[in-house]
Amino acid sequence: MNTEFAHHLVKYISLSPEEYSTIETYFSERSLRKGLRLINAGDMVQHTYWVKKGLLVSAYNEYSGKEYIVQFAIERCWITDQNAFYNQTKATFNIQCLEDSELLAISFENREKLCREVPKMERFFRRKANDSFVKLQRRLLTYLTADAKARFDQLLDEYPGIAQRIPKKILAGYLGVSRETLSRL
Amino acid sequence: MNTEFAHHLVKYISLSPEEYSTIETYFSERSLRKGLRLINAGDMVQHTYWVKKGLLVSAYNEYSGKEYIVQFAIERCWITDQNAFYNQTKATFNIQCLEDSELLAISFENREKLCREVPKMERFFRRKANDSFVKLQRRLLTYLTADAKARFDQLLDEYPGIAQRIPKKILAGYLGVSRETLSRL
Repeated sequence: MNTEFAHHLVKYISLSPEEYSTIETYFSERSLRKGLRLINAGDMVQHTYWVKKGLLVSAYNEYSGKEYIVQFAIERCWITDQNAFYNQTKATFNIQCLEDSELLAISFENREKLCREVPKMERFFRRKANDSFVKLQRRLLTYLTADAKARFDQLLDEYPGIAQRIPKKILAGYLGVSRETLSRL
Repeated sequence: MNTEFAHHLVKYISLSPEEYSTIETYFSERSLRKGLRLINAGDMVQHTYWVKKGLLVSAYNEYSGKEYIVQFAIERCWITDQNAFYNQTKATFNIQCLEDSELLAISFENREKLCREVPKMERFFRRKANDSFVKLQRRLLTYLTADAKARFDQLLDEYPGIAQRIPKKILAGYLGVSRETLSRL
């Protein structure tokens, strides 16, 4: 039993050990070395992932070569190309490991099945999605108000310790500031 | 029976007429005149709203008086202060009617009860939340890439006809551009 994952779930729902055992059977483990791609833009996306260990980054790459950082995922975060996964279409983003990573994976089909077999997981995914929406809205607000400092504070709040784990260039890219501005934040 | 609302629900889930009748009992109707506030920043937020008719805007107002447009809602959209509603805390945003509006309201408590009585509604809210996340992420990407034209196109795609219904000043505020830039888009 993956205690960390159980802890993550019970932050949103109550679960019996039997229910948790059933849930676990729907997930498979996946390990990926630092530098490897989990998802390539243009791929069909069958899975969403929960991070047991490691660090991943989701990025949007323009043809020009310019890269925009969409999302990070550290321990206890979910990551996938959300649009591609929920709508079963092709990925827009590239998702890459910045550290050796250990993931739990669930396919689109199995996620739907799991929600039917353990309806509490439907509740879990609803609450998690509401939570993620609010976090994304908070991030959007820092763009509306052009407040890079607030964006940095939120990042540290949401992903404690992340600033020490990612290259300065990627951090500046996420915040939408130059490296000079970053050093002042 | 509100046919429009039933149509909205069955885009995400299948429903029998009996299930729909049960669902309807959880919602109350609310009418609000143009110019009136549905939610004030600082309020506790008990309800989320589905728009039968009308147009509302959610805004973040700084002490300085500067206003940032967070979200619009037209027919068949949901609106509330999401953070305040989901976490049962105080509103950050002001939500105001830009037209006379007719709403269906459901309280936080009743939404949880409804999900227990009609589990398909748990599925509905999960899928709707996933959808909303993807739309917000797409909007965020237009800020990352500083592409106001893409932002405008997405707005028209998501809320057909909205450009004719809102004051130019608010539209420019939503897009984060000057009125001169807006006239070129």
